Amino acid sequence: MMGTAIILTDGCLDHSDAKTAHGLIRGTERFEIVAVIDSQHAGRDAGEVLDGVHRGIPVYETLDTYLRAAGKPPDYCIIGLAVSGGRLNARLQTLLLEAVGHGISIVNGLHQQLGDFAVFREAARTHGVHIIDIRKPKPFEQLHYWTGRIFEVKTPRLAVLGTDCAMGKRTTCRMIVELCRRNGIKAEMIYTGQTGWLQGNAYGFILDATANDFVSGELETAIVTCAQEASPDLILIEGQSGLRNPSGPCGAEMIVSGNAKGVILQHAPGRIYFDGLTHLGCRIPDIQEEIDMIGMYGARTLALTLNGESCSPDELTAHQQRLQKRLRIPVVKPLQEGVEALLAIIRDFMQA
Amino acid sequence: MMGTAIILTDGCLDHSDAKTAHGLIRGTERFEIVAVIDSQHAGRDAGEVLDGVHRGIPVYETLDTYLRAAGKPPDYCIIGLAVSGGRLNARLQTLLLEAVGHGISIVNGLHQQLGDFAVFREAARTHGVHIIDIRKPKPFEQLHYWTGRIFEVKTPRLAVLGTDCAMGKRTTCRMIVELCRRNGIKAEMIYTGQTGWLQGNAYGFILDATANDFVSGELETAIVTCAQEASPDLILIEGQSGLRNPSGPCGAEMIVSGNAKGVILQHAPGRIYFDGLTHLGCRIPDIQEEIDMIGMYGARTLALTLNGESCSPDELTAHQQRLQKRLRIPVVKPLQEGVEALLAIIRDFMQA
Repeated sequence: MMGTAIILTDGCLDHSDAKTAHGLIRGTERFEIVAVIDSQHAGRDAGEVLDGVHRGIPVYETLDTYLRAAGKPPDYCIIGLAVSGGRLNARLQTLLLEAVGHGISIVNGLHQQLGDFAVFREAARTHGVHIIDIRKPKPFEQLHYWTGRIFEVKTPRLAVLGTDCAMGKRTTCRMIVELCRRNGIKAEMIYTGQTGWLQGNAYGFILDATANDFVSGELETAIVTCAQEASPDLILIEGQSGLRNPSGPCGAEMIVSGNAKGVILQHAPGRIYFDGLTHLGCRIPDIQEEIDMIGMYGARTLALTLNGESCSPDELTAHQQRLQKRLRIPVVKPLQEGVEALLAIIRDFMQA
Repeated sequence: MMGTAIILTDGCLDHSDAKTAHGLIRGTERFEIVAVIDSQHAGRDAGEVLDGVHRGIPVYETLDTYLRAAGKPPDYCIIGLAVSGGRLNARLQTLLLEAVGHGISIVNGLHQQLGDFAVFREAARTHGVHIIDIRKPKPFEQLHYWTGRIFEVKTPRLAVLGTDCAMGKRTTCRMIVELCRRNGIKAEMIYTGQTGWLQGNAYGFILDATANDFVSGELETAIVTCAQEASPDLILIEGQSGLRNPSGPCGAEMIVSGNAKGVILQHAPGRIYFDGLTHLGCRIPDIQEEIDMIGMYGARTLALTLNGESCSPDELTAHQQRLQKRLRIPVVKPLQEGVEALLAIIRDFMQA
């Protein structure tokens, strides 16, 4: 636990751009989240805005209103956005400098590094706070090439992939880890995005900020280190994007380089086009074909987990029944019914 | 043309580790290659060492013997190795500093940046030469996200992919570009590795040194810029690695993000295991399945091009005939018979 933290979402708390914030609101062991700052949703509970579940995290309109209410600054201010431009706008910059002025350290998961700005470096020095740029690429000397050590790891690996990005892979992955732990299975999650680190996972790397040549090696190293240090019964690997997302295909690495033999596949039956690519007409491919591809990469798809986007509860249930009939694997709605239904197949997978 | 250049291969001229040198020996428009420095093959012609074809590029044992023979230093000294460690050994460092001492600029394609070493920076300043680290990642401000502008590019795109790395994709790609140009088709090659840049291609990026989040966008930008500036009839995209190479899978980007509708697939029928992974038993998957995967990504495999590694001429011809019968697409041996046999299918592809 690093300390108390507030999250900035810049009016986007209810949008998938704020998925970093969403993950932190759902739960983190690295920070104690005390508030969200979002002018559009002030006065509500952040959990209620997210999914209707009260989580005791109030939303404030401004940093000032929070500070007046709390009486003291938090240790950290986390940028809760993963905007696709990855760039900081002027409003957010002003807000962050204001936070630094109050003695609050900044945690930044955007590609743009605050440490590159003289104004932030100087403000941090003046006020004795830290600027943590979590997406800052590691220096070359600390990066690993893939070596094949992965084949010595006996711990079974399960990758949580998805047919698109911003679909709930990390949330499902975290729910499965919690399910395992509740049931006496020592599970660890390999994070591959900044939110996974923010949530407190000890092993992983930030895939999208890693030079391509080192992606497979960093993944392998994270898994090998996790197996050696934590001796888990099961390792879950957080997937990224989708195998055929034109804005950045991903997923093959988890299977061929991470040697994951099983996949839990996150899917949004109500989503027709890839995230943000509706105007281009880029359709998400057929789910059976996706499972076939995963098979060609070397992993079996154990189950489908559904994101209910654009579906009424009845529609989502209809999708679930239809897909289960068609694919002949368990199809689960994590946010609606939990992931308990996956326990049996996970146990089977671990014994195979 | 930047100037004259010698290539260092550190005793590995006949090994695939020196594939950067091999590409430069085969041809480059960016440099005039005047010699190779390689203690193991001194006295021979570099082209003869490579593939038996004399190219008028003498191999010298040391930099000193070259300088004595030539009477003047070249403009550049190029590191001709793409060692999988990507790190400079002490012997090579000494040799490079010696070159700098003679007023020769250095071109470095390794991940390790010479500009990071104070000793190189100082020596370069003292002797008035340049250190060109071609794999140095671009600053964030210069990187592009994928936007979908690729769909506005009407120029047909053909990706030259392979079932593994170090198999001849770039060489085949270059031969196809030359074939097109000889036949009145204005073709451009999008380079995706350092050798492609060294060979003088104007459009491209170094994929393995690019942070994963920007790979698709940099590829798209290179293609869009090429189409706008050079107005070619056909764009070829240099592939990297193989779709299922565990040390770093690649290739999907060229199809889904570069929107290449056709693929020329480089394959080495005599190679059983992935490059460097024989001891791990990592087998190169079946070629028909690879073609099926390429199809699932959205591209048609127009032809197979063969690398003759570990095959006698007769064996390679037997593979060619067998594969052509089995796959029902043209199968060509570029280094043995050229790529003329591909012209008709390329013309068909361009008209489709």
